[in-house]
Amino acid sequence: MGKWYCDSGDSITVSTRIRLARNLEGIPFPSRMSVVQLQEINEKVVDALMSASDEFSKRLNVIKMDEIDDITARAMVERHIISPDFASNRNGRILVVSEDETISVMICEEDHLRIQVIRPSLALQEAYDIADKIDNLLSEKLPIAFNEKLGYLTECPTNLGTGLRASVMLHLPALESLGEISILAENASKIGLTIRGLYGEGSGSQAALYQVSNQVTLGISEKAALENLLSITQQIISREEQAIKRFDDVTIQDSVFRSLGVLQNARILTSAEMMKHISKIMLGQRLKYIKLTDKNLPIKLLIETQPGMLALQGEVDADKRDQKRAEIIRSGLK
Amino acid sequence: MGKWYCDSGDSITVSTRIRLARNLEGIPFPSRMSVVQLQEINEKVVDALMSASDEFSKRLNVIKMDEIDDITARAMVERHIISPDFASNRNGRILVVSEDETISVMICEEDHLRIQVIRPSLALQEAYDIADKIDNLLSEKLPIAFNEKLGYLTECPTNLGTGLRASVMLHLPALESLGEISILAENASKIGLTIRGLYGEGSGSQAALYQVSNQVTLGISEKAALENLLSITQQIISREEQAIKRFDDVTIQDSVFRSLGVLQNARILTSAEMMKHISKIMLGQRLKYIKLTDKNLPIKLLIETQPGMLALQGEVDADKRDQKRAEIIRSGLK
Repeated sequence: MGKWYCDSGDSITVSTRIRLARNLEGIPFPSRMSVVQLQEINEKVVDALMSASDEFSKRLNVIKMDEIDDITARAMVERHIISPDFASNRNGRILVVSEDETISVMICEEDHLRIQVIRPSLALQEAYDIADKIDNLLSEKLPIAFNEKLGYLTECPTNLGTGLRASVMLHLPALESLGEISILAENASKIGLTIRGLYGEGSGSQAALYQVSNQVTLGISEKAALENLLSITQQIISREEQAIKRFDDVTIQDSVFRSLGVLQNARILTSAEMMKHISKIMLGQRLKYIKLTDKNLPIKLLIETQPGMLALQGEVDADKRDQKRAEIIRSGLK
Repeated sequence: MGKWYCDSGDSITVSTRIRLARNLEGIPFPSRMSVVQLQEINEKVVDALMSASDEFSKRLNVIKMDEIDDITARAMVERHIISPDFASNRNGRILVVSEDETISVMICEEDHLRIQVIRPSLALQEAYDIADKIDNLLSEKLPIAFNEKLGYLTECPTNLGTGLRASVMLHLPALESLGEISILAENASKIGLTIRGLYGEGSGSQAALYQVSNQVTLGISEKAALENLLSITQQIISREEQAIKRFDDVTIQDSVFRSLGVLQNARILTSAEMMKHISKIMLGQRLKYIKLTDKNLPIKLLIETQPGMLALQGEVDADKRDQKRAEIIRSGLK
């Protein structure tokens, strides 16, 4: 199992993510707890995870976030391993992450525990099962805060109940191009779902990648939440498939191959331009205009040439980074 | 010797053109002559040219312009064989043209005779010598209107004297990009030269191709006119060579290779966009970023995918033509 973005997606569905918010009984939420309490939780959670007999424990790494620099943290956000909040507040924080980065546990982000599982393609149940397994494992060893009426207790009321946030990353170039995403987002919000850009809240769409996720956690079972999200996701996929038919074949081909031409030839590529063209390549793959030996190459290049990921390789100057990005993409798509 | 645009240019100098305006004694200028007089001139000139013992006479074709359709005429203008005026007024007109289209004689355009010679690269003397040879040959057999004081008599006073218009086609992307062409044109006009776009008067620049030509024909010898033009041309070339140094290498490479990528991949290409990118390819060749087996391919593709040239192949619908253009250029640059 490689990194999620190296083994991702078929045509429209890029990846699935499950996040569970959990807290330990008798200790204040991270925003109000002491340094001693933070250390206590860190130890308890790491112990619980690392001592588990499950085979995945062997693949877990413990990362002390205050030993990590800004660039490394930023690159982790770009790879979707940690949240932007966790990256900006790394003081005494610990991240437990699997080698392939598909499983991560942020300790003392907004809640004591944020368990995250990313899987390629549309795999809500599969991802949930893994997260659930980790949740069970932790529950066996730690006193998880749970209330008969409210369910799992969380710092933010919007997570009360299941503490589950499930999301699916979709590539929606046709709907975006027709300006239909905002209507879609509006309708989704009415039934308790959110549609956001690639890098979460407040981020515009990038590469026509959108995350569809559930918002309701209270008064709904995990099963119902997942089924609800799956059903809406399938509807959106079907709309995207219909929407692309409204475009003329030659026009799409022209736009797809121009993007390929730019990516194979440019010497300077900003992140924004790169994403615009990568999106076209993904569309080209979906419509079978482009066949790549490694079908996950576009999303892999998209993630690996994010600013932080390039800075990680020593490219801190923005101009040089745009050149490095162009170089990586050029040789990748040769 | 192929068509001029198949054997053209080195870096900045694409081609050289010489045009001589001549009239026959005792017959009114074309604008005021009768149909009978037109026929008389046609016969005399064709006889004189075709009966010449010179080896080039064997390669001459006589084309009755009123047997030619609009599209063919337009394509001839695009190939620089005839003038737009000659294309629009084809009534009873005759064109004598060499097989390789480097020599042409328009009979009864503005003057009775317009002798034109196009040669690749910077070759003012060579082109003039050919034109002069044809002029001598015609003078031996026909009474050319010549006045001791005024020189060759022409319909328009601006051609009086030598009747010579010499022009050099230059590729000036750096000067264009720096906005220096208008200053150049202004200065040129002060010393009796004109700078115009690829398709002559009133045409904007296309593909950063500019024609520099002499304007003064009266009170100046052919030799002096050619020397004057050569000297200014060399100055402009040197300015262009200096100007390109003001651009950053990576920026130029980026722009050159992006254009290559677009041309190698686009499925729809308007004439204007094609010319913009071809210009970049030419710059890329000049700076040795791009090496093509056939170094004249860019200008060849530029000429051969002009609207009339494509219409000639049956593509009269503008949308289809843009697709055909993309196809030709794509396979040409593969």
